[in-house]
Order: sequence, then C-alpha cells, then structure tokens
Amino acid sequence: MAKDITVYWGSGSPPCWRVLIALEEKKLQGYNSEMLSFEKREQKSEKVMAINPRGQFPSLKYGNYVVNESCGACFFLENQFKDQGTRLIPDCPAEQAMMYQRLFEGLAFWQKLGAVVHYEWKVPAAERHDSAVQRNRQDLTVELQLWEGYLAKGPGPFLSGKTFSLADIVVFPILAFAIRFGLKADRYPKLAAYYNALKARPSIKTTWPPTWKGSQAEDILKDI
Amino acid sequence: MAKDITVYWGSGSPPCWRVLIALEEKKLQGYNSEMLSFEKREQKSEKVMAINPRGQFPSLKYGNYVVNESCGACFFLENQFKDQGTRLIPDCPAEQAMMYQRLFEGLAFWQKLGAVVHYEWKVPAAERHDSAVQRNRQDLTVELQLWEGYLAKGPGPFLSGKTFSLADIVVFPILAFAIRFGLKADRYPKLAAYYNALKARPSIKTTWPPTWKGSQAEDILKDI
Repeated sequence: MAKDITVYWGSGSPPCWRVLIALEEKKLQGYNSEMLSFEKREQKSEKVMAINPRGQFPSLKYGNYVVNESCGACFFLENQFKDQGTRLIPDCPAEQAMMYQRLFEGLAFWQKLGAVVHYEWKVPAAERHDSAVQRNRQDLTVELQLWEGYLAKGPGPFLSGKTFSLADIVVFPILAFAIRFGLKADRYPKLAAYYNALKARPSIKTTWPPTWKGSQAEDILKDI
Repeated sequence: MAKDITVYWGSGSPPCWRVLIALEEKKLQGYNSEMLSFEKREQKSEKVMAINPRGQFPSLKYGNYVVNESCGACFFLENQFKDQGTRLIPDCPAEQAMMYQRLFEGLAFWQKLGAVVHYEWKVPAAERHDSAVQRNRQDLTVELQLWEGYLAKGPGPFLSGKTFSLADIVVFPILAFAIRFGLKADRYPKLAAYYNALKARPSIKTTWPPTWKGSQAEDILKDI
C-alpha cells in the first residue's frame, strides 16, 4: 500500500511535516517522498499543479485519491489504515472531544503565528504598519498563553490526554516552528516541556525538517 | 441523548450554522439551542466563556464533553452518533478523499471571503489600503473560480460526490453567506445551481439564519 502513496512536500512547513508524521505513525514507510523546493517555487511545478490546482505543499496522492490539505490528508490516512500503526483518533469520547477541539484550535494558532513570522513576506511594504505588527504580536502572546494553560490544566501528557493523536500531529509542528523562530522556553514552560517530550518520538525525529538541521532561524519571537 | 446537548450560537455565522445543520442531519432534534447575540457581545458572556475561553460562537457541550470549534463539533457529532441519521463521512474511499479535501479547502474559502466582507470590521481605519482591498477581492475571485470549476468537473451533485457529507455542511454556509452579500449567480452558475439545490434540504431550511429572513445585506460582492 505504501508504494501507492506519493507526497510532495517542502522542508520546514508545519502543514507538510504533519503529513510525514502521520505516514510514519501509520507504518507507511516506503511511500514515495519527494522533497521539493519552496525557494525554486516547485509548488507551482507542473507535476504538483496536476494534482493540486492551488499549487501548494503538501500534495498527497494515494492510488487515484488526492488529498492535499494537510489535516485532511492526516484524517484520510487514519481512516484508510485504521488498524495499522498508531490509532490516531481516540475511542474514548472525552479524549476524542478534546482531540477535535485542540486540532481545530491549532489552525488558529498557526494563523496567529504566521501573521507574526510571515508579516513582511505576506504584506507589501507600502501596507505595513507598526500598529499591526504590535497587534499581531499581542494576539500571538494571548494565543500562546491559552496553549500554556491547556497543558497546565491537563490531562496530558498529550494534547487530547493519555494517547498521542491527530491533535499532536497538527499542533506539534506549529510549536516547533515557533521555537525555531526564537520562542523562549522559560516564558512558556509547559509548552517547552511538551516540545521536549515529543521531539524524541520516532515519527517526529525521523521527519525533522532537513533544512532546520545545523542552522538557526531568526529570533523573531524572542520577546513574545 | 439530544437533551444532553447544548449549543450556543449566533445568527448568520457560517461556523455556527454548520453545527446546527449537523445536529439536524444526525436527528438530534430536542437539543438545547441557545441563540445569543453578537451585537450584545454575548459570545463574551460568563456562560459562554465558562466552556469556551476564546469567547466565540459556536460553543457546544454534550454531557461533559466540549467541542467549540465548528468543524470539530461536526466531526465529533458524526463519530458519536455514527449510526443515527445521515452518515456524514462517506465509506467509499474516493468520496471520502474528496470530502476531506473539500472540507479543509472550505476553510481557505471562508478566510478569503472574510477578508473581503469583514475588511472594515477587522482592519483599523489607519491601516486600510485600497491596494489590499483590491488584492483581497482578486484572491476571492480566484477562489470562487476554483469552486466553480470543482462543481463543473463533478462528480456531484454534492461536493464529495453522490452523498451529502461534512464537506457540504462546512462549505454550504460559506457560499450562502457570499450570496447574501451580493454574489451574483450569473457569474458562477454551477455554484448558484448547487446553492439552489441544497437550500431546500430540510436540515438547511430549518436552520436558516433567522436574522437573514426578510432582510437584505449589502451588495459588497456584486462585482466579484
């Protein structure tokens, strides 16, 4: 089955990383992994556009099925390979409710993080305002405090409780991205502990963004 | 079971509407429906904040389980009441893949629609730029053309194929919102046909936003 799966992805993108973690957790090693380049704009290349008219990474094909949206791809892999590898949607209703809640909240986290880290890339120079930068940073601070609180209240150790789930797959790469961009562990000790516990997990360690190894990003978030 | 469910919602919000449609489809009539007011900022009221620290609608409680994120709530209801009412996640892998793809693409559609319709509400006066307005409108046009193309290519009649699914529950309210704000059917005939076919569906008709009845919104989108 794994050989029927192809994923186009770019290094350092949390959405791409999610899909790679899910593939590892579902024991789908042997899939066709094509790391392409954001710098060369290969997300707009012919072979990507052929399955993904948005011209984005990740793009995932399994046989004739295409699911390019990262969360959708993770859900689809879980449903198609339910009894293989890690069960990623908890059966316990309490954990399941928490998983859905945290997973979709993760999209707000990513949006707020992106608004800070990608500001200059997203907003043309003539439209930039210090007031917007300050507001975005404040919004991200509030967001991080929410997540710090979630982990403090538990149940833990994972986002939905005792079992690793799709919520961790969606949110961990966002947190790792924040830490790479300078988020300081001493300001968010619960998030830092969660990060440190999960970064050694085989599915995560194996798929760590290759372009992050041995290089340091800017410290954009050091005062957040 | 339905009597153990409480939903706080506001009229006219696509995320809220999704949850109401899902409750109808899953035959959960008899749930506690509390329509509250955005104008009075009741999303920040004590009883909402008690279950939803983000202070947003919808907020859904089922027994002791809380899922406030609209898509998460729909997934959770489907999983908890799988064999009751409409099956909202197709078993057919092709339809299932398409469902996940369109559902999560719906979030991009909503983001682009909101960037146009909510621009003045979201962006402080001193930070507004005609160039941003034009770009947002162009991005929304491209987005709408994508969806028009999806419906033209089929398989239809629903977003994921032959069966009504969570993808329709997530996307239909966004499309209805666009039409309420002036989107012209003759520019997007496939989207208009889809809208007209679904608006008579009992789950949708019953939950039509009460504040939309007998009133007309602005024509913000008439030239899109």
